[in-house]
Amino acid sequence: MKTDIQIAQEATMEHIVKVAEKLNISEDDLELYGKYKAKLSDELMDRMKDNENGKLVLVTAINPTPAGEGKTTTSIGLGQALGKLGKKAVLALREPSLGPCFGIKGGAAGGGYAQVVPMEDLNLHFTGDFHAITSANNLLAALLDNHIQQGNHLCIDPRQVVWKRCLDMNDRVLRNIVVGLGSKMDGMVREDHFVITVASEIMAVLCLADDMEDLKKRLGRMIVAYSFDGKPVTADDLQATGSMAALLKDALKPNLIQTLEHTPAIVHGGPFANIAHGCNSVRATKTALKLADIVVTEAGFGADLGAEKFFDIKCRMSGLKPDAVVLVATVRALKYNGGVAKADLSEPNVEALKKGIVNLEKHIENLQKYQVPVVVTLNSFVTDTKEETDFIEQFCKERSCEFALSEVWEKGGQGGIALAEKVLDTLENKESNFKVLYDSKLSLKEKIETVAKEIYGADKVTYSNAANKELKRIEDLGMGEFPVCMAKTQYSLSDDQNKLGRPENFTVNVREVYVSAGAGFVVAVTGAIMTMPGLPKKPAANNIDVDNQGVITGLF
Amino acid sequence: MKTDIQIAQEATMEHIVKVAEKLNISEDDLELYGKYKAKLSDELMDRMKDNENGKLVLVTAINPTPAGEGKTTTSIGLGQALGKLGKKAVLALREPSLGPCFGIKGGAAGGGYAQVVPMEDLNLHFTGDFHAITSANNLLAALLDNHIQQGNHLCIDPRQVVWKRCLDMNDRVLRNIVVGLGSKMDGMVREDHFVITVASEIMAVLCLADDMEDLKKRLGRMIVAYSFDGKPVTADDLQATGSMAALLKDALKPNLIQTLEHTPAIVHGGPFANIAHGCNSVRATKTALKLADIVVTEAGFGADLGAEKFFDIKCRMSGLKPDAVVLVATVRALKYNGGVAKADLSEPNVEALKKGIVNLEKHIENLQKYQVPVVVTLNSFVTDTKEETDFIEQFCKERSCEFALSEVWEKGGQGGIALAEKVLDTLENKESNFKVLYDSKLSLKEKIETVAKEIYGADKVTYSNAANKELKRIEDLGMGEFPVCMAKTQYSLSDDQNKLGRPENFTVNVREVYVSAGAGFVVAVTGAIMTMPGLPKKPAANNIDVDNQGVITGLF
Repeated sequence: MKTDIQIAQEATMEHIVKVAEKLNISEDDLELYGKYKAKLSDELMDRMKDNENGKLVLVTAINPTPAGEGKTTTSIGLGQALGKLGKKAVLALREPSLGPCFGIKGGAAGGGYAQVVPMEDLNLHFTGDFHAITSANNLLAALLDNHIQQGNHLCIDPRQVVWKRCLDMNDRVLRNIVVGLGSKMDGMVREDHFVITVASEIMAVLCLADDMEDLKKRLGRMIVAYSFDGKPVTADDLQATGSMAALLKDALKPNLIQTLEHTPAIVHGGPFANIAHGCNSVRATKTALKLADIVVTEAGFGADLGAEKFFDIKCRMSGLKPDAVVLVATVRALKYNGGVAKADLSEPNVEALKKGIVNLEKHIENLQKYQVPVVVTLNSFVTDTKEETDFIEQFCKERSCEFALSEVWEKGGQGGIALAEKVLDTLENKESNFKVLYDSKLSLKEKIETVAKEIYGADKVTYSNAANKELKRIEDLGMGEFPVCMAKTQYSLSDDQNKLGRPENFTVNVREVYVSAGAGFVVAVTGAIMTMPGLPKKPAANNIDVDNQGVITGLF
Repeated sequence: MKTDIQIAQEATMEHIVKVAEKLNISEDDLELYGKYKAKLSDELMDRMKDNENGKLVLVTAINPTPAGEGKTTTSIGLGQALGKLGKKAVLALREPSLGPCFGIKGGAAGGGYAQVVPMEDLNLHFTGDFHAITSANNLLAALLDNHIQQGNHLCIDPRQVVWKRCLDMNDRVLRNIVVGLGSKMDGMVREDHFVITVASEIMAVLCLADDMEDLKKRLGRMIVAYSFDGKPVTADDLQATGSMAALLKDALKPNLIQTLEHTPAIVHGGPFANIAHGCNSVRATKTALKLADIVVTEAGFGADLGAEKFFDIKCRMSGLKPDAVVLVATVRALKYNGGVAKADLSEPNVEALKKGIVNLEKHIENLQKYQVPVVVTLNSFVTDTKEETDFIEQFCKERSCEFALSEVWEKGGQGGIALAEKVLDTLENKESNFKVLYDSKLSLKEKIETVAKEIYGADKVTYSNAANKELKRIEDLGMGEFPVCMAKTQYSLSDDQNKLGRPENFTVNVREVYVSAGAGFVVAVTGAIMTMPGLPKKPAANNIDVDNQGVITGLF
């Protein structure tokens, strides 16, 4: 069997100028990065702003197994299939993080015959967006510590620095560090932390910004620390905004690449789906809507995190209105939710499937609360039996959801025709009356509780003392109208990753709360959330290589 | 008066495809990065390898004032002037470091009417080469700490980890840190250090590598730590070589941009000139020689560091043979070397000039030891008097050096015609019999002492106990035939930055020694060398901005 990178490398790519032509983008509006990648000019976006919008389709998933359920693969395959059906479709996806490529997870360019290419470039440096974010993040950190070093006129309390340094690397020893050791000239000693670049607030800010003006406003109001008397200190206070924005000038422009079948794909931004909102940039999605009749986009993790934040954060802030949702399930994940151990997921087991399908049921109910029509798709595996897939199809029909099998991993766009037809049918015949889940004017606790009860199915929410104190501070700072961004395990609807299926009678405990003032949301952290991953015993990095002709192997 | 960035932004650039045409490079051999930057393909370099080489001109300088003496500006102006005279000339320069842009120093794209453009891109992310080096450097660090975490089968002594993390940022608090705090899952606690990216050994390795095969060999043999029983642990031992090389695949390709007058400029790599060799990449210089009749290149700091390492490290390893050297002096620096305080350098002072000119004298003598013809150029300032410049011209003539005034900062290529003519005359009429200063087979101490005595003018060299011990270890490891890379203050020929002019009767003290096994040189550190700069009280970052049209201001 061919690996993803082999399939990707065997593909004949079109010159990106030709891919852009399909969207009526002229070469003048492209900033080429080699022959197969380009950034879209600001002028293009300005010129198109009065075009009519295409239809917006969100791809999300049920709660996954630790291996993931192929959400990106399904999105890409759906895009390819729409192309095969002669539709003017474009993908709007997230950029992968470099760090995980060297660990367990690998890259994130889809898989099998549903990939975006050039796969190696996308997974490694791509057009440098994440490096720009890393630089801007760490410039702000350096300016902050330099401010303390040079007299600390803003009276920053070194114990209340909330801005963290970042690297796009899985590097556990940087989670908790002490900086500033040495002599007086080497800075003030304090405890510090690195996060992975995708967890930087700047990533979320870049993905929510409308344009350069909005980007600068958001960067400027980011809170980096609190003073000894408890006042927030912002990036503007440190006069850091302009130079960060200069570093992000090109990163703000969406990137254009292609699928294995030359479908245009706009790939831009990639914030964490726990402490941030987990969607590609607003600019990319809006640009895509102006360029195509149908835009396929995705959101991180399962629908309880990804779709909820897509609706309640991204759509709320940007005015985007989804027309349909594709909910990806797998037989494996349903069995996993039915209690089957990871090692046994390839065995047929209808009983476990029937038990685990309550997870799918809950996600369907949740999505229907947003009043957007839902198409369920089963990302097929060779180990699936007909009895299993028939059961799922019947289950969906009873809940007035469209259903389609997806075989895009194996067959590319051809394997997604059934799904594409159901999506087209839905877009033509079912109305979306999209509405957000809660009113921004509710208190922060009311908002957290609405998500926990309505979406997760919790009975109640408890708060640590620290969380209670911080919620009050945030409301006192006048940021109580921000939407909430829940940081929760992706493996369960609850905040306990061992509660599979459709948990009931449980409490969600909010351990920590903080405001991402630039992004414009309040993060409520439940459980332990990792913002700097580590490497495994046998890192993927050990198998990656490049030959004398520049051909990379071992990336997956 | 216009700022450098204003001049740069007012320039009308040619499309880089057109600039490449002047060197007979077709569009197929370019990897475009927007309209004004490109990388040169490996295929181009392969195809040209049997072309005849052009002439190689090195630009170096006397010991500078803290403001620098305009070596890059002179190089660029000379390139522009050669173009004006109808010569097929190309520049081979270093890429600037991002960190200093936000501090005091600013960028490094030349100045006035002798600049390479696009200036903002070059000074910020450019084509991502430095970001790739940062990633590769920190991947190696993460793999090292992960190895310790996962059982430490190589028995790495955490007290003897010599590999440091890096960021392209001036960030003093990262000089000395403790990593791995927290729980058992957060790594092993140890002291660690960040250096600025240009100080990473990977930067030196990239700049000395012939091709991908050589790059991998060099990366693989880099020493990252010593084991408890004193054995070196390399990147190969950590199985890190392939993935680092994959990250560096594109960074290994030289970049093409242009001067304000559209002279082609190959800008690639930029290692520190103290703990590394301070020259652009061997690949860039060799490519330039195949493409043009005359290649103008430069080396960091004054000739005692930059030219010495260009000759004894870069030329020795690569087989390059310089045909002429341009030695840049300024009236200001000569007066500074004559004891005038920084604040008074704009006042005419022939007496101080006569006193300080011994610095120029020593550099001329030094360069003549390499048997390469020397042209002295005075980078003119409006405050210079005719009496001062006449005196310098006469002084040079008495030492059989060509002399020319350079006014490229004010007048661009036109201001460099006199210099260009002297350079052309030298290339036609004076023979270069280039030879390196010392034989590789000498002992490390003999090599250090040759440089210290012959070039610096020292009486003797002393060594700390640690240095003595390490010299022995390096010779025991079989690396005694490496050339030496002296880390010394750039402000004096001695290792004491207060000893100006032409110091005599002094001792050089070698405080620390270590081997850069991948680069292939032994670093001998004299005095205190800063590998992670700090930000000043008023960082340049505070004044940098970008407007809604993407125009950057405040970068200099």
